[in-house]
Amino acid sequence: MEKADILIYGCTILPMDDRGFIEDGALAIKNGKIAFVGKSASATSIEAEIKINAKGKIAMPGLINCHTHVPMTLFRGIAEDQPLDTWLKEIIWPLEAKLRSEDVYAGALLGCLEMIKSGTTCFADMYFHEDTVAKAVEKSGLRGVLAEGIIEAGNTLLGEKMFKNSVNFASRFNGYSNGRVKALLGPHAAYSCSQDLLVKIGEEASRLGVGVHTHLAESKLMFRKFERKHGLSEVEFLDRIGFLKGHVLAAHCINLTKKDRRILSERGVNVAYVPVANMKLGLGSAKIKDLVRLSVNVGLGTDGPTSNNTLDMFETMKVAVLLQKLAYLNPTVLPAYEVLGMATINGARALGSDGNIGSLEVGKKADIILIDISKPHMKPLHNIYASIVYSARGSDVDTVIVDGKILMENRQVKTLDEQATMEKAERTAFDLLSR
Amino acid sequence: MEKADILIYGCTILPMDDRGFIEDGALAIKNGKIAFVGKSASATSIEAEIKINAKGKIAMPGLINCHTHVPMTLFRGIAEDQPLDTWLKEIIWPLEAKLRSEDVYAGALLGCLEMIKSGTTCFADMYFHEDTVAKAVEKSGLRGVLAEGIIEAGNTLLGEKMFKNSVNFASRFNGYSNGRVKALLGPHAAYSCSQDLLVKIGEEASRLGVGVHTHLAESKLMFRKFERKHGLSEVEFLDRIGFLKGHVLAAHCINLTKKDRRILSERGVNVAYVPVANMKLGLGSAKIKDLVRLSVNVGLGTDGPTSNNTLDMFETMKVAVLLQKLAYLNPTVLPAYEVLGMATINGARALGSDGNIGSLEVGKKADIILIDISKPHMKPLHNIYASIVYSARGSDVDTVIVDGKILMENRQVKTLDEQATMEKAERTAFDLLSR
Repeated sequence: MEKADILIYGCTILPMDDRGFIEDGALAIKNGKIAFVGKSASATSIEAEIKINAKGKIAMPGLINCHTHVPMTLFRGIAEDQPLDTWLKEIIWPLEAKLRSEDVYAGALLGCLEMIKSGTTCFADMYFHEDTVAKAVEKSGLRGVLAEGIIEAGNTLLGEKMFKNSVNFASRFNGYSNGRVKALLGPHAAYSCSQDLLVKIGEEASRLGVGVHTHLAESKLMFRKFERKHGLSEVEFLDRIGFLKGHVLAAHCINLTKKDRRILSERGVNVAYVPVANMKLGLGSAKIKDLVRLSVNVGLGTDGPTSNNTLDMFETMKVAVLLQKLAYLNPTVLPAYEVLGMATINGARALGSDGNIGSLEVGKKADIILIDISKPHMKPLHNIYASIVYSARGSDVDTVIVDGKILMENRQVKTLDEQATMEKAERTAFDLLSR
Repeated sequence: MEKADILIYGCTILPMDDRGFIEDGALAIKNGKIAFVGKSASATSIEAEIKINAKGKIAMPGLINCHTHVPMTLFRGIAEDQPLDTWLKEIIWPLEAKLRSEDVYAGALLGCLEMIKSGTTCFADMYFHEDTVAKAVEKSGLRGVLAEGIIEAGNTLLGEKMFKNSVNFASRFNGYSNGRVKALLGPHAAYSCSQDLLVKIGEEASRLGVGVHTHLAESKLMFRKFERKHGLSEVEFLDRIGFLKGHVLAAHCINLTKKDRRILSERGVNVAYVPVANMKLGLGSAKIKDLVRLSVNVGLGTDGPTSNNTLDMFETMKVAVLLQKLAYLNPTVLPAYEVLGMATINGARALGSDGNIGSLEVGKKADIILIDISKPHMKPLHNIYASIVYSARGSDVDTVIVDGKILMENRQVKTLDEQATMEKAERTAFDLLSR
């Protein structure tokens, strides 16, 4: 190999490609891509601009958050422990109506900062003013799979306008920032968009060659209401109108029938499992084992910071496991290694990006995190998978690399001014409340 | 006031005494006790040896872990995602049989280090060689409510021996280390001790003036087995034999009948709610609202690090809330402030120590933590209770004070050598596996 840009050595590598882990391993990065993965002993001849001694650390693929609304950092903690309806209608929606593009940018930057500091390197987002989220991705150095949301809610003109915005966003930003931004269309849900609009969205996504990101079967109440109205479940309905033909990322999937699960499997729909928010809003538990058994691909998401309230994928991995063991009353369900897959390679697949990211393999993009295991809660290290899933926290992430660029080293973020980003977002949020 | 030992000022204080919170507050400590709580502006005349500018921090009572087996840090991650029976019989028990007193000490010290670093100042422990846990409490500076465990399991001689050990421990260590150690008797469970032994334990506890710490209604399988054998539930049985008359701390309480709940209420039994381990072992969820409605006092516990796998009470607070909202499918259940109470003042009450600890009030022991809120996941600070419960992690704790002594400042632990403690425990654990 010609001279590498970065060489990381001396760490335990968890490549997430079914090779298990590599002790005393090394990784070389060249032109933003992984150029070598193997034993440190086999990397001694590799020259590099930057050499990182990662002894006492675990290297693994950056975590992939498959469902969030990042700018909602602005509303973190603003309305807690309330019924979903009150929360949305009386607090969140009136505030969102006042949101300006620059507010969304400030919230998105804070979210990007939080994600870098907790080891997330790629996130799937759906919100409004999504162009500013793309700008936050560009500035922070993260990778984003972004969709401008479309909610019709009985208002055809509004639906048409949001549809145009979503298509416009996807046309402009797919591939933006050296390919770190990928665009999807963002129909909010089957119950909040009309059939005509959903069909149009599906066709337009196909024309643009992009996928769609939507909410699916989140609330039992909505499920029953939808079924009464259409005589079909949300999944059956979407299948009937041909919406599930393309690349679909569907968040939540709590209330599914057997038939629904079979349809999701047959159509290759990707599920974003969102355990923390599903619990916090008292909505129930997705039955992940039943989906995985049918070979449905499952990624993990945090949801927006108003209903979680963090963007910490380590916490989400742990709660994801806890919730499944509880849902099946069985401690063997969803073992640690499996949830690590959901947070990495299966997450990448859910975003249609598993050719580029999600595992540490030569030729893939260099999206890598280093976890510091010299912490009391990580000792003794009997089981590397259990340590990451059951013991590690976002704050144990020491170094974050995306596209071969170091975004954080020794917990110092290099692409964003941490203090200024926090202050700006807090000022924005308080100002929003007083408008 | 004469000169204070420590003055903390400029912080937001959450006293947990129903006064809400105090902005720009100050705390003075004298002879290990809290001598002043109020506004910084009212504390300007207080002289002190040590002054801590705590601007940008929250001061609150140290967290109280009401149920754990701290030395089990040694086995953290050793046997994951397995059925309870296999886990216990094939892995944990054979290892425990090889445990020496010095092994337990090494594990307990690691646990104490982890607790200090995540803001726990007092813990209720039940294990073997508990005298070494008392020594770890002494050295680390923490506060411990400790019980030597008693398991009879059909072997009367063994039961008698462990009973004597437990009584002996309580006699020797109650009040140890300037009162930072308090002793209880530790009957493992109703199903693992005979009626005769349980009666003797109750009588001896009363004679010694100490409480008991036990497991109760943890497993549905055990519940049914017990009921078949005795014709009574565990709770009814313990009540019938007079065991619930004294101070009882009962961990888990998942499988309770209506009648059981009424008995717990009438007898003033204290429940340790243990959400993470209950989920991880696939055992189910305690119904906390139903207990609180009957005025049962509820504290929070992590359980041992083999079934959690951390001792992080911040994580436990969050999961405690998530699990209740899920169990009742209702987002208004167990609001943030209520779980903060469980982790502090109600936890103190569960340990019979609410006269001394659990809230920041003049005259109480100075067990205080400072939480650093200058972190992206804590911004913006719309709601202080939600920030602590839903956003904060153990790693956000900056300073820990117990009995008026600073155990950690700026995340540097002063009473233990962090590196040596981790290395010793890891070496011990690996050695144990190879014996």
